[in-house]
Amino acid sequence: MFSTPEATARTGDDAWLQAMLDFESALAAAQSDARIVPAGAAADIAAHCRAEEFDAAAIAERAVSSATPVIALVKDLTALVGPDSRPHVHKGATSQDVIDTAAMLVTRGALDLVLDDLRAAARECARLAEEHRDTVLVARSLLQQALPTTFGLRCAGWLTALDEAIAGLERVPLAVQFGGAAGTLASLGTEGTAVLTGLAERLGLAEPVLPWHTDRTRIAELAGALGTASGVLGKIALDVELHAQTEVGELTEGKPGGSSAMPHKQNPATSVLITASTQRVPGLVATLLSAMPQAYERAAGAWQSEWEPLTDLLRLTAGAARRTRELLSDLRVHPERMAANLELTHGLVLAENTAARLAGALGRTEAQELVAELCRRTVDRGSTLRAELLAEPRVRDVLSEQDVIAATSASDYLGAASDFIDRALAAHTGLEKR
Amino acid sequence: MFSTPEATARTGDDAWLQAMLDFESALAAAQSDARIVPAGAAADIAAHCRAEEFDAAAIAERAVSSATPVIALVKDLTALVGPDSRPHVHKGATSQDVIDTAAMLVTRGALDLVLDDLRAAARECARLAEEHRDTVLVARSLLQQALPTTFGLRCAGWLTALDEAIAGLERVPLAVQFGGAAGTLASLGTEGTAVLTGLAERLGLAEPVLPWHTDRTRIAELAGALGTASGVLGKIALDVELHAQTEVGELTEGKPGGSSAMPHKQNPATSVLITASTQRVPGLVATLLSAMPQAYERAAGAWQSEWEPLTDLLRLTAGAARRTRELLSDLRVHPERMAANLELTHGLVLAENTAARLAGALGRTEAQELVAELCRRTVDRGSTLRAELLAEPRVRDVLSEQDVIAATSASDYLGAASDFIDRALAAHTGLEKR
Amino acid sequence: MFSTPEATARTGDDAWLQAMLDFESALAAAQSDARIVPAGAAADIAAHCRAEEFDAAAIAERAVSSATPVIALVKDLTALVGPDSRPHVHKGATSQDVIDTAAMLVTRGALDLVLDDLRAAARECARLAEEHRDTVLVARSLLQQALPTTFGLRCAGWLTALDEAIAGLERVPLAVQFGGAAGTLASLGTEGTAVLTGLAERLGLAEPVLPWHTDRTRIAELAGALGTASGVLGKIALDVELHAQTEVGELTEGKPGGSSAMPHKQNPATSVLITASTQRVPGLVATLLSAMPQAYERAAGAWQSEWEPLTDLLRLTAGAARRTRELLSDLRVHPERMAANLELTHGLVLAENTAARLAGALGRTEAQELVAELCRRTVDRGSTLRAELLAEPRVRDVLSEQDVIAATSASDYLGAASDFIDRALAAHTGLEKR
Amino acid sequence: MFSTPEATARTGDDAWLQAMLDFESALAAAQSDARIVPAGAAADIAAHCRAEEFDAAAIAERAVSSATPVIALVKDLTALVGPDSRPHVHKGATSQDVIDTAAMLVTRGALDLVLDDLRAAARECARLAEEHRDTVLVARSLLQQALPTTFGLRCAGWLTALDEAIAGLERVPLAVQFGGAAGTLASLGTEGTAVLTGLAERLGLAEPVLPWHTDRTRIAELAGALGTASGVLGKIALDVELHAQTEVGELTEGKPGGSSAMPHKQNPATSVLITASTQRVPGLVATLLSAMPQAYERAAGAWQSEWEPLTDLLRLTAGAARRTRELLSDLRVHPERMAANLELTHGLVLAENTAARLAGALGRTEAQELVAELCRRTVDRGSTLRAELLAEPRVRDVLSEQDVIAATSASDYLGAASDFIDRALAAHTGLEKR
Repeated sequence: MFSTPEATARTGDDAWLQAMLDFESALAAAQSDARIVPAGAAADIAAHCRAEEFDAAAIAERAVSSATPVIALVKDLTALVGPDSRPHVHKGATSQDVIDTAAMLVTRGALDLVLDDLRAAARECARLAEEHRDTVLVARSLLQQALPTTFGLRCAGWLTALDEAIAGLERVPLAVQFGGAAGTLASLGTEGTAVLTGLAERLGLAEPVLPWHTDRTRIAELAGALGTASGVLGKIALDVELHAQTEVGELTEGKPGGSSAMPHKQNPATSVLITASTQRVPGLVATLLSAMPQAYERAAGAWQSEWEPLTDLLRLTAGAARRTRELLSDLRVHPERMAANLELTHGLVLAENTAARLAGALGRTEAQELVAELCRRTVDRGSTLRAELLAEPRVRDVLSEQDVIAATSASDYLGAASDFIDRALAAHTGLEKR
Repeated sequence: MFSTPEATARTGDDAWLQAMLDFESALAAAQSDARIVPAGAAADIAAHCRAEEFDAAAIAERAVSSATPVIALVKDLTALVGPDSRPHVHKGATSQDVIDTAAMLVTRGALDLVLDDLRAAARECARLAEEHRDTVLVARSLLQQALPTTFGLRCAGWLTALDEAIAGLERVPLAVQFGGAAGTLASLGTEGTAVLTGLAERLGLAEPVLPWHTDRTRIAELAGALGTASGVLGKIALDVELHAQTEVGELTEGKPGGSSAMPHKQNPATSVLITASTQRVPGLVATLLSAMPQAYERAAGAWQSEWEPLTDLLRLTAGAARRTRELLSDLRVHPERMAANLELTHGLVLAENTAARLAGALGRTEAQELVAELCRRTVDRGSTLRAELLAEPRVRDVLSEQDVIAATSASDYLGAASDFIDRALAAHTGLEKR
Repeated sequence: MFSTPEATARTGDDAWLQAMLDFESALAAAQSDARIVPAGAAADIAAHCRAEEFDAAAIAERAVSSATPVIALVKDLTALVGPDSRPHVHKGATSQDVIDTAAMLVTRGALDLVLDDLRAAARECARLAEEHRDTVLVARSLLQQALPTTFGLRCAGWLTALDEAIAGLERVPLAVQFGGAAGTLASLGTEGTAVLTGLAERLGLAEPVLPWHTDRTRIAELAGALGTASGVLGKIALDVELHAQTEVGELTEGKPGGSSAMPHKQNPATSVLITASTQRVPGLVATLLSAMPQAYERAAGAWQSEWEPLTDLLRLTAGAARRTRELLSDLRVHPERMAANLELTHGLVLAENTAARLAGALGRTEAQELVAELCRRTVDRGSTLRAELLAEPRVRDVLSEQDVIAATSASDYLGAASDFIDRALAAHTGLEKR
Repeated sequence: MFSTPEATARTGDDAWLQAMLDFESALAAAQSDARIVPAGAAADIAAHCRAEEFDAAAIAERAVSSATPVIALVKDLTALVGPDSRPHVHKGATSQDVIDTAAMLVTRGALDLVLDDLRAAARECARLAEEHRDTVLVARSLLQQALPTTFGLRCAGWLTALDEAIAGLERVPLAVQFGGAAGTLASLGTEGTAVLTGLAERLGLAEPVLPWHTDRTRIAELAGALGTASGVLGKIALDVELHAQTEVGELTEGKPGGSSAMPHKQNPATSVLITASTQRVPGLVATLLSAMPQAYERAAGAWQSEWEPLTDLLRLTAGAARRTRELLSDLRVHPERMAANLELTHGLVLAENTAARLAGALGRTEAQELVAELCRRTVDRGSTLRAELLAEPRVRDVLSEQDVIAATSASDYLGAASDFIDRALAAHTGLEKR
């Protein structure tokens, strides 16, 4: 429920298994290029590095006794290849080389989905920002109506945040892991770095400066970037849930959810799933950061604690990204409810504007106090702020009727909203073109 | 205990207060440039934007009733300036503009310290990597002796991780916040974005595409980068603590700590403080990520939850960075203990090498099983692996005495260790020159 | 801003210092009782165990080099007492004995405040539950209006949750720590456990089965109980914030906060501060749980990482508890807005009731589908569900006009709401009497 | 790898499905008892509440559109029963009643395994504490040798911590959830609380005071208790890993793990898996605590975020508990290595004792300084502390040769270690008998 079938497939046991085999296959090939493994053996190994030939469940079971699935995997792979190829399987590698590289490959597969969905979600935001450039609604701070803004500007805010999250994810360095048991590639003699280079190239991963067995900055940066993206998605979902409240009614999901007991409910089910997924992300990021201090050349537990949380992080972010894309592509906007809500406070949301216009003549503090008094009067009398302003001599001494009307018109008080939309769209176009 | 006096000063209540005042001062100046505030008023405001003129404790107390210190601050500032300047104080700004911009300024101040110390720590690692290029010690995985490596390579690993963490922190975007109550800068009419640009320039902060009141990607990225850096420091401290164990004795701190009850103790007190500080960081990062979904135009609690954790994060990372710098600059390395520990297993740490050399003739699996058998025999008899290898016919069928001696010499089995050190040093030099 | 002056005082540096001195004083006294310290020395030591005689800042500074403030503290205390008393200071104790016991004493001081405020908050909930037993409002699920409930039942829910949280905190075991450097009390010879018993009695703390230097279950249970209490407070604050939304308007705080820019704002400032405080708690709890695995007889970092987070946890929970008490004691309830909001959906919130009444005759699924259809019709036509039910032949075949009217009356559809209030009040009275 | 087959089965999709069906079945039965559902219908429903009759994957897929699996489940169950039974399926219940009750049932199933394994682990600790009551080893603080203790006392410490964790888990209240959509059980008229009572009895769960839809104290307390238990297991595993270090060698696992590259490795694989599992727990606890503030009568995301983390928490704790039981039942203790390590510092670990014995005559500070000087001399000269003490006039002025020998004998300096073991065993026996 909290991911997507594609993301689940790309991060599942079979995907991990295949990624580990991809490492073994590419390793043999790179060693063949370096002339330390016969080409025939490399081809033989590659031919058997297919997940279908292995029993993932049995490997997991056998993994318990050594705290790593690689020993069993290598044993099974060695058994599958011809006798002459056997000495060349997993040559010079250690368990962590296999698993860390597989983690990078699995991450790449899932990240492609995440980025695709985030980019599509950003495009939807750009469309909504443009479409609703002039749709006035009330900005709310601390869940209280504040003053006017536009729904277009809100969407531009979502857009910019998504663009920033995308940029962060694009920067995440996915590098091959290859150091052998001590990080020295000792068993490859003088060929170590050449094989490392070839392996990185064959897998399409970056070549690291050093083996990064106990340098977990890559995992931490990935976690941070996924956490940031997830937080952006959570913000969008929270906004939709709030706007979709029965009493607010400014947005509804394209396909709201039903209820087992209440036939009339129009639940923001997609937003709820996004929220549920993204709320779990900070805990996973913390787990991965907590795992960074890894002892000596290989950790006794901290490294192993990364595997499932990393998978969960990818799964959940992919699910939230996909659902946000769907949510935005099919979002129902209700400008008439936005307009109606803007009237709920009888003009109080223009109080800031009024106070500002009075501040020149009265001083900031006095102007604010006067307007606060008129706001209370508006509420007490059930009138409107405009009426109270027009009726108040201290106001009329400094503002004409026309001034008061202008000061209390929402669409005249949008400041740089449209400029900001342009800036967000321009920045987005710049990113898209890159 | 967990920070430094400098970092505490740069992130304390007075630093926050001054940063908020710096915002107000720069705002008036930028508005003067835009000709919407008289130059005299801007100068008057600037003259009073000094923390010494304010009572931080009283402001904090008055902040409770509105959940923000800015109202009281603006009231006090307004009272300090001349009557003509009063309408120009805090013009067009909202509380969050002040606090978010102050957060960026406080962050910049603390980050300068963090980066300075991280760079110095990296230089110490570079020095140690060079100095100990040939200092052989045993690599350990899962806290078990594995096979030989060099202390220089370990230091190169620390160096590369530090360099990556530094690069991550250098990328963190520190941008001004300015949007007014709804993010539209409505009260500035058409001058909003011009003032935004001017304000950013005057404060030396980046100009954001949009006000980022509820787009918390900046805070999240900062948290992630500090979390990554902190994890790197925690790894170094963990290594030192482990190497400094009485039974290992390969490293000692330059100024080990005493004990209240045990006069002989040589505690790795600096590493302990680094560990204690960095262990708290993931929880703080999670708190900041959890705060990302912020409602509408200003959050009701999530934003406010960021303030103290961000300060703590800066304080703790600064403390850990400073202590790591000190730790590394004064680290006592004991090559003789490293050499002695390498002999503890009677040559078993060369088992991988031996197995690899036998694999060509015997096949990988058989070679590993044979070596495992000889390892058990070494342990049972209290002999050495070399002796057992020389005595075993299945070995001598394929390896000469000289082969066996070479296979069991640690300094002959360091693979690419020295190459990797060169790569780390070259990468580091590249970063330093940048 | 996020705590209270009392809680800050009881958890501040001076409180910790005094608690450490209380340990030293009680230790000497207990040892005097056991006749291993002269009564005069114990009295001399007690006379100097007053925080005013020490320089907390200087102790903290000197603490850095040994990663513990106790060495400096003991040195200063020893210097203060007479020469004959000196050998009897800190006898048989280790740093961790002092700090862990001080943590328990500081916790007790803060917990008294927390419990006092939680109990007062619970009493306010009980009062509100009674007063608003018949105040009908709409229940909301997934932020959508669902069906009628009473505000009294909501308050009963808050009450029960608070009572559970109080019970959890009352169970937290606060025990003395005393084991000496290895947990054996070796330096006290055969008197170790007798002194332990006496020390616990004098400090009013429980006597543990064993020294718990690296058994952190106490800290973990305390953290869990504070985390639970904090979550309950966060739920109440969230509800108030949501009910106080401009568009909902069912609750307002007694003293809403103002805004620096918007004079009309009535911000739920107290709830916002509660939310901000409680959102930080899970990260702190996680930090304390992460610190549980502590090596051997004393941890190298994990233990030290507990100190500030424990203080923060106490401070924040105390702040949130105090504010919740204030919030509830002065909460403004608006039954007329509750009634008005109940009408917003034109009767749709009674859809469940209607479907249930039809299910007997039509079957559950068909009844739900029919009602869902009528709900859509109500919305499309802007009519009421009651009118659509009365106009629908499939309904009228099985329900009379009176049936339909009863089915669509909110106050007739409250089920066990009043029973549940009675249960909550009875359970609360039981706890209060205990 | 991180759980056990039994725990995975009891917390898997099928277990959740069956638990949800158990709710539906018990609900119909309880309603039959209350005479609001015909006995035949209840029997018919019960007959079909078997997971085998449902397609869990299809239900999960259909769950996405409504953010709950219950709608699809109820639809399928309704289709399976006879036409007359259909109106009686899921009567008066809401999705959250089903899922929360299922969570309690799943928890009970997993908790039985956890408690069984924790109790067995505690028994192993009791056995080890008794067996190794006189096995002297060196206590270590901050990873430095401190002074003598016994391995029996260490095991007693593990025992007491396990017993505390068990007591905490036994206290966790598992209660039925039943409130209907608004928590009022409105659709059951006056029968609501009677059905609640019957439902609780039939499921063997506690009857709550109130429906606890948005009172998550149960989940929080469960999370806290699992977090505490997990931390205790993590501490045991950490100790084993440290004792098993090649350089320490005091413990080895019964079945150490191999390595893919190093045939000689004897990895503490079981401890590593325990560590890896338990390190992930604090993040999950934080996620569950973060989910406590749930809006109104049902949360929009926070509740839904609990489901998978709760399952993970149970799975991981069950895995760690099982492995700890296995670890302890088969732990190899090496008293000879313990004795040898005690000699490593040439008697420095008795420095505290010596200083204490000198303190009476010389004063505490002077005694400590003198002993510290002799410790340094011991190290510099490669002698022993005993020899240096005997050779030092300031010592011999106050201590006889026999005094010095006694002061430097480890087995004479164990204080209350044996008493403490007795206390731990007695407390354990008390718990077992309860």
